[in-house]
Amino acid sequence: MQSTSLMWVSALSTVACAAVACDPATLSDPLPSWNDGAAKTNIIDFVEQITDSSRAEFVPANERIAVFDNDGTLWAEQPMYFQLAFAIDRVREMAAERPEWSTQQPFAATVSGDREALSGLTEHDIVEIVTTTHSGMTVAEFQAAVAEWLATARHPRFDLPYTALVYQPMLELLDYLRANQFKTFIVSGGGIDFMRVFVEDVYGIPPEQTIGSMGELAVEMRDGTPLLVKQPGIDFVDDKEGKPVGIARFIGRRPIAAIGNSDGDLAMLQYTASGPGARLMVYIHHDDAEREWAYDRESPIGRLDMGIDEANTRGWTVVSMQRDWNTIFAFDAPQVP
Amino acid sequence: MQSTSLMWVSALSTVACAAVACDPATLSDPLPSWNDGAAKTNIIDFVEQITDSSRAEFVPANERIAVFDNDGTLWAEQPMYFQLAFAIDRVREMAAERPEWSTQQPFAATVSGDREALSGLTEHDIVEIVTTTHSGMTVAEFQAAVAEWLATARHPRFDLPYTALVYQPMLELLDYLRANQFKTFIVSGGGIDFMRVFVEDVYGIPPEQTIGSMGELAVEMRDGTPLLVKQPGIDFVDDKEGKPVGIARFIGRRPIAAIGNSDGDLAMLQYTASGPGARLMVYIHHDDAEREWAYDRESPIGRLDMGIDEANTRGWTVVSMQRDWNTIFAFDAPQVP
Repeated sequence: MQSTSLMWVSALSTVACAAVACDPATLSDPLPSWNDGAAKTNIIDFVEQITDSSRAEFVPANERIAVFDNDGTLWAEQPMYFQLAFAIDRVREMAAERPEWSTQQPFAATVSGDREALSGLTEHDIVEIVTTTHSGMTVAEFQAAVAEWLATARHPRFDLPYTALVYQPMLELLDYLRANQFKTFIVSGGGIDFMRVFVEDVYGIPPEQTIGSMGELAVEMRDGTPLLVKQPGIDFVDDKEGKPVGIARFIGRRPIAAIGNSDGDLAMLQYTASGPGARLMVYIHHDDAEREWAYDRESPIGRLDMGIDEANTRGWTVVSMQRDWNTIFAFDAPQVP
Repeated sequence: MQSTSLMWVSALSTVACAAVACDPATLSDPLPSWNDGAAKTNIIDFVEQITDSSRAEFVPANERIAVFDNDGTLWAEQPMYFQLAFAIDRVREMAAERPEWSTQQPFAATVSGDREALSGLTEHDIVEIVTTTHSGMTVAEFQAAVAEWLATARHPRFDLPYTALVYQPMLELLDYLRANQFKTFIVSGGGIDFMRVFVEDVYGIPPEQTIGSMGELAVEMRDGTPLLVKQPGIDFVDDKEGKPVGIARFIGRRPIAAIGNSDGDLAMLQYTASGPGARLMVYIHHDDAEREWAYDRESPIGRLDMGIDEANTRGWTVVSMQRDWNTIFAFDAPQVP
């Protein structure tokens, strides 16, 4: 049955290829946006090892868990986390009904949109902005606002929807792992309700495989219907040491592959590395200022300092965006006719 | 391709049937342990409605989420929650290294095993017993202890491993829903780390689709390896109004089917019912003292009082174990040769 199915797939591929005159090389390369090199080789070797039932490294399909950071790993995170851009736009929208904000910080600075005022926001200000814009409504109401924003907001540098700034090589990696029976999860410091609006469409990752930071939720009964209302309190921060905790809570088994880009992902990579057998730990290194951004040890956003040292010491895979990726953004990818 | 695949499956079924001389009626009935009646009809009608793409009730596969309570819904919960039986056995095991427990309550009563002393345990005592036996070790160490207990402990009435006391009709329902592209989840007041030891083997539900109550977790670094250590504090109680919260957090979309057996499941059924389109809400009613147990409105364990009134008022499906199930436990199911 297995071989018959494979014959069917193969026959169909041939038919599809003939119909669109596509390049057979593309079909055989699961990662066409990745240049040949150590990073691509490490990934493919790992997958071939753990899927080959004749090898000691074989991992059964139900244990093939891969975890991905989101900001800076699956989509860009400059010049600010996209969720913060949403929160700032939301403050401006809400300001119409909050005249007191015109004199009250940090809202006045946020509403003014003045670049200098914005860059002076402290971490405390940012928490206040996020909390204010992310609570006092049901999860469904919040997600409707996020969907509206994603449909209309434009990234300041590329003048494209934020969801266009996903990395084409990472979409290919997600597909490649899933084609090899991996379950792909997001484990992000970003807000769980925010991400779940777009992850299924954009990454093919369903909400139930998306782990993130969470505010408190309260249940309010209205006419015998429980409504889930977002509260100002923070319930769980899915960053740094919180990432292994989030994985233990939401997944309940140790991943065999972990991909991140910052020190916030280090504990997740360490946790993944600490299991037995073959493991894949990957850091995406932002070193391409021309096509994307270049930042690492000193960056306030997505700082990669301890992480890159540990990766180099332990022989983890470090991906140079400049060297290893021939295409960066999905919007730059060659269009399939 | 679709019809070719179906032909293959059909041809294989015929071959399999000829080989073991099985009854073709069993093949066509996805729920053989369910007697004909309203409950079985409601379930099958619901599944046929939401999987028929020509109908208004059609639900795409990625939104086919079904949630199941565990204790009293998938396996038995008498004469006490099985997890409490584990905790009590664990106190006895730990007592060898805690001589002070011989005089200290509630441990002395627990160690003595005296039935009267045990029945006098207060809720506060039980929390203390569970907390003491469920913290101060890594998740992996705890789960090894659970696995050992499941392999050796015997249920007092049936003298069988606790995992033998799963309901055969519910195993069939899980299989039937999954065969129709449902993702099946457990949403239980029981402990998440406890359940995840056996749910995949016993129910075919992976750990990442198992939601339960959780203690706090701390990350401790040992030799560059993050270890997850169970703490005495309670992080989340996945019962009553906690169930919709657990669903919102872990799944991120509203289920279209919910199955429970107690008032602790009512909020989960209400939450499921409050979405648009076709919905399946099921209460399992324990009314078979001979083959299982009979309890509802007055029971300290698995009380079903408000829930059954609401089910009757709103026309939800109430399953009578006595009337609707021709087999109750998996160990009683006819063996497939």
